[in-house]
Amino acid sequence: MLCNITYQFGIIFIGEKMHFKIIDGGVIAPKGFKANGVKEGKYGVGLIYSEKDCITAATFTTNKVVAHPVNLSKEILKNNRTKIRAIVANSGNANCFTKNGYYDAKEMIKETAKLLNIPENSILIASTGVIGRKMPMDIIKDKMQKAHTKLKEESNNTNTAKAIMTTDRFPKTIAVEFEVNGKTIRIGGIAKGAGMIAPDMLHATMLCFITTDIKINHSDLTKSLQNAVDKSFNNAVVDGDTSTNDTVFILANGESGIEYNECAELFDNALTYICTELAKMMVMDGEGSTKLMEVCVKGCASEEDAIKASKSIVRSLLVKTALYGGDPNWGRITAAVGYSGVEMDMDKMDVLISDFEKEVYLVKDGVPIADEGTKELKLAEEIMKNDKIKIVVDLKVGNYENTSYGCDLGHDYVQLNSEYTT
Amino acid sequence: MLCNITYQFGIIFIGEKMHFKIIDGGVIAPKGFKANGVKEGKYGVGLIYSEKDCITAATFTTNKVVAHPVNLSKEILKNNRTKIRAIVANSGNANCFTKNGYYDAKEMIKETAKLLNIPENSILIASTGVIGRKMPMDIIKDKMQKAHTKLKEESNNTNTAKAIMTTDRFPKTIAVEFEVNGKTIRIGGIAKGAGMIAPDMLHATMLCFITTDIKINHSDLTKSLQNAVDKSFNNAVVDGDTSTNDTVFILANGESGIEYNECAELFDNALTYICTELAKMMVMDGEGSTKLMEVCVKGCASEEDAIKASKSIVRSLLVKTALYGGDPNWGRITAAVGYSGVEMDMDKMDVLISDFEKEVYLVKDGVPIADEGTKELKLAEEIMKNDKIKIVVDLKVGNYENTSYGCDLGHDYVQLNSEYTT
Repeated sequence: MLCNITYQFGIIFIGEKMHFKIIDGGVIAPKGFKANGVKEGKYGVGLIYSEKDCITAATFTTNKVVAHPVNLSKEILKNNRTKIRAIVANSGNANCFTKNGYYDAKEMIKETAKLLNIPENSILIASTGVIGRKMPMDIIKDKMQKAHTKLKEESNNTNTAKAIMTTDRFPKTIAVEFEVNGKTIRIGGIAKGAGMIAPDMLHATMLCFITTDIKINHSDLTKSLQNAVDKSFNNAVVDGDTSTNDTVFILANGESGIEYNECAELFDNALTYICTELAKMMVMDGEGSTKLMEVCVKGCASEEDAIKASKSIVRSLLVKTALYGGDPNWGRITAAVGYSGVEMDMDKMDVLISDFEKEVYLVKDGVPIADEGTKELKLAEEIMKNDKIKIVVDLKVGNYENTSYGCDLGHDYVQLNSEYTT
Repeated sequence: MLCNITYQFGIIFIGEKMHFKIIDGGVIAPKGFKANGVKEGKYGVGLIYSEKDCITAATFTTNKVVAHPVNLSKEILKNNRTKIRAIVANSGNANCFTKNGYYDAKEMIKETAKLLNIPENSILIASTGVIGRKMPMDIIKDKMQKAHTKLKEESNNTNTAKAIMTTDRFPKTIAVEFEVNGKTIRIGGIAKGAGMIAPDMLHATMLCFITTDIKINHSDLTKSLQNAVDKSFNNAVVDGDTSTNDTVFILANGESGIEYNECAELFDNALTYICTELAKMMVMDGEGSTKLMEVCVKGCASEEDAIKASKSIVRSLLVKTALYGGDPNWGRITAAVGYSGVEMDMDKMDVLISDFEKEVYLVKDGVPIADEGTKELKLAEEIMKNDKIKIVVDLKVGNYENTSYGCDLGHDYVQLNSEYTT
C-alpha cells in the first residue's frame, strides 16, 4: 500500500502523482489552532486549543483495563462530538487503577475550562505515565497553569509535543498541506510513544493528537481516521504490550473552507501519511531502540493473514535481537511467519532484506540462498549493519499484503524498563 | 491444579496423599533403557536406546516452518509407533530450511541403525540449533560414533542431557518412581530449552525425551502425554517464539509388568509432574533469565480465558523487565490481563504477589492497595527481590484457572540473542 511512496524536495508522491507538501508547525499548522505545553522533570501538561468548535473523531485502547481519562473522553464525545474546543494531556501519571482517578480527571477538565473560558464538555483529556499511583494533583495543576500562561503568550508546537513525552527521546510532530480549488488544507499532528506499543489493537495505540482545517462531518472523519490508524499505529510494534491509555484524537474546525467530498481520497492519503510517519517515529524512538524495520509480507491468502504474518515478525524477540546485533539470522524470520498460523508453504516462500539501496534474497522459492560462506550471506551482513532495514516476505499463496513497523530490542530497553517506577 | 503439591524428603504429595518419589537417573531410571551422549564445542549427539520395542507417543511443533527431523520422525511414527528402539538427537544445527536436510536426517538414522544394529524404522530423530545452515555431516557422524562408543561402555544420563544442550546453562533431568501392587513403575526425562520457548502451541515446545517402563497402549500414552504437555510445556514461556523443531517423545517398554489401567491417575499425575518440573527448569534456564515467575490466573469465565490471561502476563515484556529489575510495577500485570481479551471487570479483580512465604495484595476488589508510600508497596518491593515469584490474579467472573511459567528478561537475553549466529 505505502510501498511506492517517494519523496522529492519535501513533496510526497504516491506512485507518480504529486500529493502534498510537508510543512512545519505540527498541530498549529492548520488555521485556527493554538497549542503550548510545559515539561518539568517527570511531569508535563500540553494544551491544544481551537478558536472554533471542532468536529472530532477518536480511537482508544482496546485494553479492558482502562484509564480514567479514556473513560471520561469517551463520555464527553458521546454527547458533544461536534463542539470540541480543547485537549488537555498530562505526562508522568497514567491515572489508571487509581482510587480517586475519575474525579481527578474531572478536576483537570474543570480547571482547563476555567483557564480557557470554554465549556467543560468541550474538552478532551488524556494521560500517560505510570499505572496505579495517585495523581499528584497539586503538581499537575501547577503545570496546567504554566502551560496556559505560555499558551496565552504564544503557540509552540514543539513544547506541546515535549509536554506529553515520557521515555521518548525526541518530540514527534509532522504536518502537511495540499491545495484544492485554489484553497489550502492542512493537517498536523503530534504523538508520544516509546514503551507499551503493540499490535492487535482494533482502535488505537498511544497518544496522538491531530488537527485539521478541513470541513468534514463526524462519520467521514471517523472512517478516515480509523483507516489511517489501522494502516499506521496498528502496524507499529515496540514491545507488544497494549497500553491502558492509548488515545488518538482528531479535531477538524472547517476553517479551510474546503469540504471533505471535494478531496476525499487526497485527505485520506494525507491523514494516513501523517499517522504512518508518526508511527514510524514512535517505533524509531521505541524504548532503547537503535534500528527500524519495515516488514512487508505479500502474497498472502487474506488481509488478516498479511497482518498476522507481518506483525509476528516485528514482534518476535529473536528477530528484534538479531536486528540489534546486525545478525542476518533469517531462520528467525521464517520461524516467526511459520508460527503466526497463516496459510503458507515453506517450499514456496521468498525472503528478501534491503537497506533501501542494496537488496538480497535470503530464501527464494523455499530454497535457502544465504548459507554459510556464500556471497549472499556476506551482503546480508552488510545490509544488517544499517539502521533502517526492509524485510520482504512473499508467501505466494494469494494477493494480500501488509506492512508493519518494528524496532530492535537492545540493552537500553532492558535498562529503561527494569528501572521505570523505582 | 498443581497448586497444592508439597514435598517432604523427596516424596511428592498431592493434597495429603503420597504419590511418588523423586529418584536419580533420568531417562535411564526406568528398566531396560540405556543412554549416553557427547558434546564437543557447538555440536553434540545424544543416544537413547531401549532393549525392547517401545510403544511411543509424540508431540511436535505447530510451526508451519518445520525442520526435516520433525517430518522424518512423524513419518516413522505413522508406520511404526509400537516398535521404537532408539532416539538420536543432535545439537548445533536445527536441520531446518536446508537444501539437502531431509537426506542428512535420513543418513543420521541409517548410521544409528548400523551402530545399534536395529531397524532404521525403529529410530526417532530430533535436532536443535541454528536454522538455514547445511548440516555438517562429517562432524555430526563423528559425534554419533563417539556417543555410541560411550554408550557401549556405560549409560550416563547427564551426558545425554548435556549432548542436546544449546544455550542451556545446565542439563535438565528428572525421574520419579511409585509402587503399584508391589511392583515399581518409573518415569524419567531429559529436556533442553533456553531460547525459542513460547506459548500458543497446541502440541509441543522444545526437545524432551521421556522413558517409562509402564505397560500402556498407544492411545492411552498419547492422551496422557498430551495432557501433561498442555499443563506444563505449553504453559512455559521464555520469549514467545515457537521453534521449528519442538519435539516431545515418550517411550514405554512395559518392563515394570504393571498395566496403565491399574494406575491411570497416578501415572498421569507423575507424567504431568515430570513435564512440569522440566518445563520449570527450562524457564529458569531461559536465555539470560535470572528469575522464575509462576502466574496463576483464577476466577476466569472459561479455561481458554484462564490460559490466555496467564500467558499474556508471562509473555509481557514489561512484566518480564519489571521482574528483572525487582520492580513491583503491578500496573503492567493488570494491563497484560486487560489486553489479553478475556472476560473481566477491572473493578472486581484481585492481584497478589508472593515469594512462596510472604504475600501481599496489590489490588483487592479492583481497588489499588500498593500505592506510593504504603507498607504494602514496601512489602511488594521486598518480595520482588526474590528469584522465585508467584503472581495470583483473581478475576472473579467464573471458576476456571490456569498456571503459566515465565522468566524475566535481562541484559543477558539481549547479549545471547544478538550474537547467536555470528
